[in-house]
Amino acid sequence: MGYNLLKGKRGVIFGALNEQSIAWKVAVKAVEEGATITLSNTAMAIRMGQVSDLAKQLNCEVIPADATSYEDMENVFARSQEILGGQIDFVLHSIGMSPNVRKKRTYDDLDYKFLSQTLDISAVSFHKMIQAAKKQNAIAEYGSIVALTYMAAQRTMFGYNDMADAKALLESIARSFGYIYGREHHVRVNTISQSPTMTTAGSGVKGIDRLFDFANRMSPLGNATADECADYCMVMFSDLTRKVTMQNLFHDGGFSSMGMSLRAMATYEKGLEEYMDENGNIIYG
Amino acid sequence: MGYNLLKGKRGVIFGALNEQSIAWKVAVKAVEEGATITLSNTAMAIRMGQVSDLAKQLNCEVIPADATSYEDMENVFARSQEILGGQIDFVLHSIGMSPNVRKKRTYDDLDYKFLSQTLDISAVSFHKMIQAAKKQNAIAEYGSIVALTYMAAQRTMFGYNDMADAKALLESIARSFGYIYGREHHVRVNTISQSPTMTTAGSGVKGIDRLFDFANRMSPLGNATADECADYCMVMFSDLTRKVTMQNLFHDGGFSSMGMSLRAMATYEKGLEEYMDENGNIIYG
Amino acid sequence: MGYNLLKGKRGVIFGALNEQSIAWKVAVKAVEEGATITLSNTAMAIRMGQVSDLAKQLNCEVIPADATSYEDMENVFARSQEILGGQIDFVLHSIGMSPNVRKKRTYDDLDYKFLSQTLDISAVSFHKMIQAAKKQNAIAEYGSIVALTYMAAQRTMFGYNDMADAKALLESIARSFGYIYGREHHVRVNTISQSPTMTTAGSGVKGIDRLFDFANRMSPLGNATADECADYCMVMFSDLTRKVTMQNLFHDGGFSSMGMSLRAMATYEKGLEEYMDENGNIIYG
Amino acid sequence: MGYNLLKGKRGVIFGALNEQSIAWKVAVKAVEEGATITLSNTAMAIRMGQVSDLAKQLNCEVIPADATSYEDMENVFARSQEILGGQIDFVLHSIGMSPNVRKKRTYDDLDYKFLSQTLDISAVSFHKMIQAAKKQNAIAEYGSIVALTYMAAQRTMFGYNDMADAKALLESIARSFGYIYGREHHVRVNTISQSPTMTTAGSGVKGIDRLFDFANRMSPLGNATADECADYCMVMFSDLTRKVTMQNLFHDGGFSSMGMSLRAMATYEKGLEEYMDENGNIIYG
Repeated sequence: MGYNLLKGKRGVIFGALNEQSIAWKVAVKAVEEGATITLSNTAMAIRMGQVSDLAKQLNCEVIPADATSYEDMENVFARSQEILGGQIDFVLHSIGMSPNVRKKRTYDDLDYKFLSQTLDISAVSFHKMIQAAKKQNAIAEYGSIVALTYMAAQRTMFGYNDMADAKALLESIARSFGYIYGREHHVRVNTISQSPTMTTAGSGVKGIDRLFDFANRMSPLGNATADECADYCMVMFSDLTRKVTMQNLFHDGGFSSMGMSLRAMATYEKGLEEYMDENGNIIYG
Repeated sequence: MGYNLLKGKRGVIFGALNEQSIAWKVAVKAVEEGATITLSNTAMAIRMGQVSDLAKQLNCEVIPADATSYEDMENVFARSQEILGGQIDFVLHSIGMSPNVRKKRTYDDLDYKFLSQTLDISAVSFHKMIQAAKKQNAIAEYGSIVALTYMAAQRTMFGYNDMADAKALLESIARSFGYIYGREHHVRVNTISQSPTMTTAGSGVKGIDRLFDFANRMSPLGNATADECADYCMVMFSDLTRKVTMQNLFHDGGFSSMGMSLRAMATYEKGLEEYMDENGNIIYG
Repeated sequence: MGYNLLKGKRGVIFGALNEQSIAWKVAVKAVEEGATITLSNTAMAIRMGQVSDLAKQLNCEVIPADATSYEDMENVFARSQEILGGQIDFVLHSIGMSPNVRKKRTYDDLDYKFLSQTLDISAVSFHKMIQAAKKQNAIAEYGSIVALTYMAAQRTMFGYNDMADAKALLESIARSFGYIYGREHHVRVNTISQSPTMTTAGSGVKGIDRLFDFANRMSPLGNATADECADYCMVMFSDLTRKVTMQNLFHDGGFSSMGMSLRAMATYEKGLEEYMDENGNIIYG
Repeated sequence: MGYNLLKGKRGVIFGALNEQSIAWKVAVKAVEEGATITLSNTAMAIRMGQVSDLAKQLNCEVIPADATSYEDMENVFARSQEILGGQIDFVLHSIGMSPNVRKKRTYDDLDYKFLSQTLDISAVSFHKMIQAAKKQNAIAEYGSIVALTYMAAQRTMFGYNDMADAKALLESIARSFGYIYGREHHVRVNTISQSPTMTTAGSGVKGIDRLFDFANRMSPLGNATADECADYCMVMFSDLTRKVTMQNLFHDGGFSSMGMSLRAMATYEKGLEEYMDENGNIIYG
């Protein structure tokens, strides 16, 4: 079905949970594009989710790992090279979780142990992943590493809470390691900053449906879907983007470059109506 | 009333039209802060507006000039140095106009002669101003040049039309000349990117009141006023910011770093209601 | 040899001059990837350059056009649709020229007629191209428009002169039109910000070889070549990047995210040596 | 000597160590500008450094605190309000330390316990500071909070190591909390991104003198000094910047907007000479 963009390449995909997951769709497309892959997720996610079904469907192995454990990361890359028969060409990091968000701690009432977990799971895990891979020389020359991120790293979205800070840290790690791994092995490291997406993770964010609608009307092309995000990952894993590194790539239908669209304003204006006098002038509160 | 921040300094203020103008308020505050100044605007603006009243109030002279005429720019700086008795310490560029906006040409139906005028008046005028000043060595060592701009240069605002492109060009000229004038005479060149403001110019933009409201609810501190912008200009003209150059400084209550605020979303959500089913779920169109 | 990424697509390539040109390589790859194309350049460039050879090689037609002429732009799209038998799927704008650079006018001594030409040729031409195309409804739904640009639009490079301003304007036009064309026809508009490249145009820039070396040592992956740029264009024209729009995409081996690399510093340090005392301490001038 | 910019204001300054410290100079200038202040640093820094001398000189109190301890942060704000007799108007965060840098662990060989400390000390401390203050309602309406940062947060500088990631996290915290504290109490939160500075902390960074020289020659105005940084802090603490929030403000003589300067290239070129053949052409390695 595909273009053979990843023919002969080996990949490791972190974070597939169920059919809604972006990582799931990336795994499916990567195989369609000719790659062989391994999957990794936490032991709990493997028990609770449908990762094993995906592995069966794609005829690939699942390696349980806690992304906050350096040893587990080492194991994923050691095992993946054994299973796939050589160095890894591409890696996807699609991992994020905030106990503060889950426990409804607001940003001015953070639990610092939770914050530390948010950063460890959602950002430092990316560093561990790359450091573990590099020490084993697990990534092939001109390999490609991608992490998924969100625009809250640049612009505050109410309710996104300490995940915004984690994403900023994640994007910084991509740049910092992109320099090191690039100069030594031509490995590129980038982040894809994706539209709000109705995945299991995304659905957990409070008011996500309203935000989704706003982003959709603001973006001239509408929100990018999980499927389209997987397409973009194919491109970033392929040999056609070998000199793109240390970048944060917005994949969002144009949202990041919008200040205000006509469509979003039309909705906003309706909400404004009750603040207007009989002549349609806004009564500023 | 002030802090004597500009004591003994000489300035030239372009673009004051009436009491709503940011340039007007900058002129008033600069004098309060101890500066002596000249004003400049087009012959027509001087006839139509209240610039002469301002000049009387501040006991300063008005030098008519068409900002697209290089000779007029030369004259403003030559005359200003004569009148004020020495080199100029600070300059404000608050000039912008789009015939395409005025004539309601949409962005996909621009008149290219008009576009050329938009760029000449709103952006190239800034280059002419600085080049004319530099050739006469009219700006004192450690002088400060500021132009007012708007965030549409980075993020598209529907209806802002070719003024967005003019502002992007203006900001680029600030950087390019900031390098040259900085290395040779320590003159700094910056742009201040101001909230939507209800000036005469601002009021002309279609739907400005709705945009103003949206920006106001998005910005944690609310929109910055013209008065507050004048305060910020004082700071940028003073000796306290001598190493700030080639920057685009957002003066907008935080808008530029916001993705979505609770307050703006509350209004948006009201507008959304008619797209919802009885359970409050959004019916995506 | 390719992936069939552009199978069945129709494209228009502006700016191929000779084998060094990025546009030339884009044309060759686009055909390899399954597209049919037309080429366009000025009548003079066609006479002087090797465009006709390229056309022969690719079995495609060359349509002469002055990019500052709106009528010529209309003609290119009208003719291209006739020749290729339908709406256009992708467009490359690789056009730029500064008479100020050619005539060695420095940035603080610009000729304003030349500046106007720089902007018209290098930036406004992009608007004319898109406006002409849109009025004829010449671009297919989900089409892709790309212009080549350079990082001088964000960060001043000595000697790049008014081309920096032209590139800033070009990138703004991409955003502004990206919004309009995206919301109406799902057409995406992006710019690719390429490493310094040893093309005929690039070679004209003073000191380009030193700048090329500096960029090369700063970039962890080294400078991106013209060939690699063509690969990236394939990706941006393909269906795999349908939700990427209004972006400026750095294709530069990581340069844009570097502050200082070890390799570049090693060279810099050698140059520093004569400013050092016998203990290796820098004598600050 | 000053302008009375901070007349009647109360401030807390974190991180003054000795006369070279930026925080030291901020403390001195704040008092000159009419403020009353308290100082805070770790118990060890107080013992080892000259903070007590500074306190004597400024006639103010020092409150020992470990910035990673939330309780200590609470205590600083409780005590400061008691001592100064009311709510706090401004706060400076000038705190950063990386055990990985100290122990010479390279970025691809980080100790993760150290990394956690780097983040806690250099970035999360800022969140704790603000959360502790907000819970006590310790900051006055329209108060101003500033943290010092460095451009490595955006662009990789070799050798800056995990401090780059810490600074990215710090800047994100400024944005995230700027939204919350702004909308509720009009408190602004910004970061100042300062030139490399020859402080005790700065001097510890490997190769800082070469980097300092490079930045100095790249910046049209030269590097910003610690004194000038203190001036900029005065401005940000004053009432003249009340609508500036959630910004990262470059205070660097223009460095952040430079791609390459003539002066830096002249030095670079000398270093290049040994890679040139007899005709001055660069031999690319």
